[in-house]
Amino acid sequence: MKKIGLVTSGGDAPGMNAAIRAVVRVAYSQGLEVVGFERGWEGLLTNTFRRLTPRNVGGILHLGGTILYTSRSPMFRETEGVRKAAETLALNNVDGLVVVGGDGSLRGALELSKETDSLIVGVPATIDNDVFGTDETIGFDSAVNTAITEIDKIRDTANSHDRVFIVEVMGRKRGFLALTIGLTVGAEIILVPEVAYSLDQIVRTLEKSAAKGKKSGIIVAAEGIGDTHKLVSEIEEKAGVEVRLSVTGYAQRGGNPTARSRLLANLFGNKAVELLMNKQGNRMVRLEEGKVTSIDLEQVCSNEKQLDLSLMRLAQILST
Amino acid sequence: MKKIGLVTSGGDAPGMNAAIRAVVRVAYSQGLEVVGFERGWEGLLTNTFRRLTPRNVGGILHLGGTILYTSRSPMFRETEGVRKAAETLALNNVDGLVVVGGDGSLRGALELSKETDSLIVGVPATIDNDVFGTDETIGFDSAVNTAITEIDKIRDTANSHDRVFIVEVMGRKRGFLALTIGLTVGAEIILVPEVAYSLDQIVRTLEKSAAKGKKSGIIVAAEGIGDTHKLVSEIEEKAGVEVRLSVTGYAQRGGNPTARSRLLANLFGNKAVELLMNKQGNRMVRLEEGKVTSIDLEQVCSNEKQLDLSLMRLAQILST
Amino acid sequence: MKKIGLVTSGGDAPGMNAAIRAVVRVAYSQGLEVVGFERGWEGLLTNTFRRLTPRNVGGILHLGGTILYTSRSPMFRETEGVRKAAETLALNNVDGLVVVGGDGSLRGALELSKETDSLIVGVPATIDNDVFGTDETIGFDSAVNTAITEIDKIRDTANSHDRVFIVEVMGRKRGFLALTIGLTVGAEIILVPEVAYSLDQIVRTLEKSAAKGKKSGIIVAAEGIGDTHKLVSEIEEKAGVEVRLSVTGYAQRGGNPTARSRLLANLFGNKAVELLMNKQGNRMVRLEEGKVTSIDLEQVCSNEKQLDLSLMRLAQILST
Amino acid sequence: MKKIGLVTSGGDAPGMNAAIRAVVRVAYSQGLEVVGFERGWEGLLTNTFRRLTPRNVGGILHLGGTILYTSRSPMFRETEGVRKAAETLALNNVDGLVVVGGDGSLRGALELSKETDSLIVGVPATIDNDVFGTDETIGFDSAVNTAITEIDKIRDTANSHDRVFIVEVMGRKRGFLALTIGLTVGAEIILVPEVAYSLDQIVRTLEKSAAKGKKSGIIVAAEGIGDTHKLVSEIEEKAGVEVRLSVTGYAQRGGNPTARSRLLANLFGNKAVELLMNKQGNRMVRLEEGKVTSIDLEQVCSNEKQLDLSLMRLAQILST
Repeated sequence: MKKIGLVTSGGDAPGMNAAIRAVVRVAYSQGLEVVGFERGWEGLLTNTFRRLTPRNVGGILHLGGTILYTSRSPMFRETEGVRKAAETLALNNVDGLVVVGGDGSLRGALELSKETDSLIVGVPATIDNDVFGTDETIGFDSAVNTAITEIDKIRDTANSHDRVFIVEVMGRKRGFLALTIGLTVGAEIILVPEVAYSLDQIVRTLEKSAAKGKKSGIIVAAEGIGDTHKLVSEIEEKAGVEVRLSVTGYAQRGGNPTARSRLLANLFGNKAVELLMNKQGNRMVRLEEGKVTSIDLEQVCSNEKQLDLSLMRLAQILST
Repeated sequence: MKKIGLVTSGGDAPGMNAAIRAVVRVAYSQGLEVVGFERGWEGLLTNTFRRLTPRNVGGILHLGGTILYTSRSPMFRETEGVRKAAETLALNNVDGLVVVGGDGSLRGALELSKETDSLIVGVPATIDNDVFGTDETIGFDSAVNTAITEIDKIRDTANSHDRVFIVEVMGRKRGFLALTIGLTVGAEIILVPEVAYSLDQIVRTLEKSAAKGKKSGIIVAAEGIGDTHKLVSEIEEKAGVEVRLSVTGYAQRGGNPTARSRLLANLFGNKAVELLMNKQGNRMVRLEEGKVTSIDLEQVCSNEKQLDLSLMRLAQILST
Repeated sequence: MKKIGLVTSGGDAPGMNAAIRAVVRVAYSQGLEVVGFERGWEGLLTNTFRRLTPRNVGGILHLGGTILYTSRSPMFRETEGVRKAAETLALNNVDGLVVVGGDGSLRGALELSKETDSLIVGVPATIDNDVFGTDETIGFDSAVNTAITEIDKIRDTANSHDRVFIVEVMGRKRGFLALTIGLTVGAEIILVPEVAYSLDQIVRTLEKSAAKGKKSGIIVAAEGIGDTHKLVSEIEEKAGVEVRLSVTGYAQRGGNPTARSRLLANLFGNKAVELLMNKQGNRMVRLEEGKVTSIDLEQVCSNEKQLDLSLMRLAQILST
Repeated sequence: MKKIGLVTSGGDAPGMNAAIRAVVRVAYSQGLEVVGFERGWEGLLTNTFRRLTPRNVGGILHLGGTILYTSRSPMFRETEGVRKAAETLALNNVDGLVVVGGDGSLRGALELSKETDSLIVGVPATIDNDVFGTDETIGFDSAVNTAITEIDKIRDTANSHDRVFIVEVMGRKRGFLALTIGLTVGAEIILVPEVAYSLDQIVRTLEKSAAKGKKSGIIVAAEGIGDTHKLVSEIEEKAGVEVRLSVTGYAQRGGNPTARSRLLANLFGNKAVELLMNKQGNRMVRLEEGKVTSIDLEQVCSNEKQLDLSLMRLAQILST
């Protein structure tokens, strides 16, 4: 192991820069060289990279985004793309590649690992926290905190107006973000794609809540549940109350990472280099029962992470 | 002047609680009693109020929302409603009424002043800053800062992805929020209802910007300009670039007020009581050339505040 | 189990209110009554309490501090105090008591459990994270984030002035806060009470750092290491550079809890009631390998939590 | 006017980068070249500068600190230093120089203007707001907001413990920061260097406050009032209550500027270039009665800004 490559791919997540810094500095402490491919897989397809050194990754630990840029590269999904990337690695004598990204990027990493002799290690980084095998991904905690800060503010105006708000949060097709956000803002109702909901039930919950004297209601809805604008009208019609919609947007993807996202990035980056030094490829670093370990990439990509439904029940009790 | 009433009305704004605290404490220091009518004009229509004392307005200075609640009361717009409110004031021996709210609430205050012997004083509080006669309203600075904090985060992800974002901000039919937000986040383009825009021009600006090497683009659009979803599609089609939309929502209306919103609330609340002690009614307190003075309510309601278009030109130069 | 008591004790921590809300609402869902003793042990010594209901713990989830107030009660340390508290529990037919607090409070809980038939359950809440048996305490994550937000700002001014800053953070006699903060702000040097440091080594590290072109230096020092004012002078003299001191203060103890502190509070509060319902006393709820379990209070109080020294080494590598 | 120079000097203030960006972009829009001297006056003494272009000042609007670095340069205070700086300007054909900084830097600018043919324009930027002639300086609003965010958190812990806190804030020898901060956090007592205080009075105020049922007390003290550690002991002894000290530190000097600091920076930067284009030197841009105008530098340096003592009285009434 002499030279490693680094790429950030897919949607950006707060802490990606911290992970870049960690990989580079740990790698240098082990005598490795590091090159960073730019704009996700595109950098591997077009052989666009720059040398990364302990100095030029300084001052980025606390910044959102990724200094390597990122993209979603449709071409990479085809075999030809993967082969091209493998050639780029060979051309540059890259012995190991660290892929920082979410679900899709890790699938790409797995595909690539089949076409190259370079060792591939994945680092799970996505605000969606939907990666099998790890309890948490880099960026998740930051996105949750950005959202709850916003919803705490919305609660002010909801209370002042005795109003019901639907707050749509990110998370793509999964409800990890919505569930944690809902639990931590005390949402009266949490809607996730993993659990079917009925309009009747929502209206009943709102009515019970009003009967108990609650002045406002917050419904946290994952973007994956479908059209929230329509839901607003449906609830308004059925419950006879005013409902407002607030769509917390891309801000959840940016901003300075929280301590936890930075810490995960530090630990994951460190572990990724350790795996490469130990000649272990085709793996993903992960948080498992409070510890940083690793797991087979194949396993990551062939399983689906489960939402903890007991938390849905707890949320219900807590928003009584 | 023995007893004054206080009401917060219309959309809530950060700093309303600070204004309540200021009015109450200054009033008590002058030997006045204070009652707070609840839920905006509704409290005056239904005679719902509570006594406010220096102690029960403690601990609220820094909180968003309004402890008196607020509402938009359609019934108040009719003469009968206004008379009912006047009766409530007479019934409770309210010598003076402080109305804290935005444009619509101040119009209501003017109507009410024609039907009552109580002295009416308006305190401009709205995140929209669209009240004629005052350089700034309570809550505006808070909403601007909430929005720019969010847009700074969006800039992270915009930069990482080389993407164009339209960020829709509040402001109802006016562009005060959008203009200040656009100027302070360095938006490449600012769209306000007061200035017609052309799709061609937007596309040209984005192209020029890209030609200069800018990695991303932020378009700040006032909600008053119309359908931003449609604008996204139009730009995407015409410019051939990916455009994302983020609608900064009701969070702008809540949250802890900034220092400036708190300061204005303190100064405006103090001035409102001073006016009443001096038996001056039918007036609105205001910020005028850096000083707190007052203006005839009639004048406030019969003029339209102008957007400073020179700032639009400056924004263009600064986003070069 | 019919009636449970609740007390917050020792230094306050963000998330204590969330824990109160969780205990009360989960307890009610199980048909239990809850009383809250005020001002820590003092409430038990003086029989001062109020009934807590799902409604009167509404709207506090996101607020710092504790609505039950807290104190450090020296009198409780004596046997007589503990007996008086036990009498109060008996007098009010309190079948179980949930004690929310840090190290000292949990020792008190253990003492109390020896004198009463009520079941005692501890909930670890302290910004210091120095409680044996749990990977994390309620409030720790919030304090860390408050501190890093502040230090990110100090880094701005440190960079602009090419200056070395010592930032003293809280943590009493332990280095948990300092270590996590140091790791997540990229401190050049971290000083904790658990690891002896030498002035020579600090100066050497700063010199190496400067030689590499680093424009500024941040030394994160736990309050437990001793006199940081003196350290400033010593480094200034020995290294011949200007050093500034910033003591991050009590703000770390307040403020809205982060998502993680709120989540822990929800889960811990839920678990505490579950233990009582299962007639398990003399235990502390805890986070153990990513899961919420419980541990014997005796064991908590007779062991010392270890600082993970491997993180100190990682911090050194990462600040290269 | 073909080429202008730019320097940031003295203590850094949030918004300095925004001012740099504004000066550079407005200058370019007028066909001017810009060079930035580094590390304050030191760059002028050592002829260290770099070319600034619209592109290389991109992405800095929202960042704290100053990309040109800054310093306090004792050598510049002597005539020889000033002459050296004048030579540097001549050597590089700098027709106009924009000096961004506080009180001391503006004095330096005045001295320099006497020795050079280049036109000198000052831009007031300091968190202390102690510059005569301008209602506000760049950075003041940011520092105030940083401090009140911190003190809001301290209020949580103060309330939970029924405690008195002294919070020392910045401001050097003046009380502008302390007064505005005190007013906007609802401090029970504000101590500024401009107004003598007596220990007796402080104790009386605290006692009255306690008698009224206030659970905690916040004393905001300007650093300029002297030894706050000593004050803690004195109050503790005399009032017989526990008092804690929190020194809000250098964080007030860093961090992302608020909207208002950015706006001022934009407007001041624009005005500075306008003055130079109009061949007006030896002036400082300023905020005067809500408008951006300019004033003679001589006048700035020969007068002392007055603290508005009526605000001290208002603060007293509002903290009743």
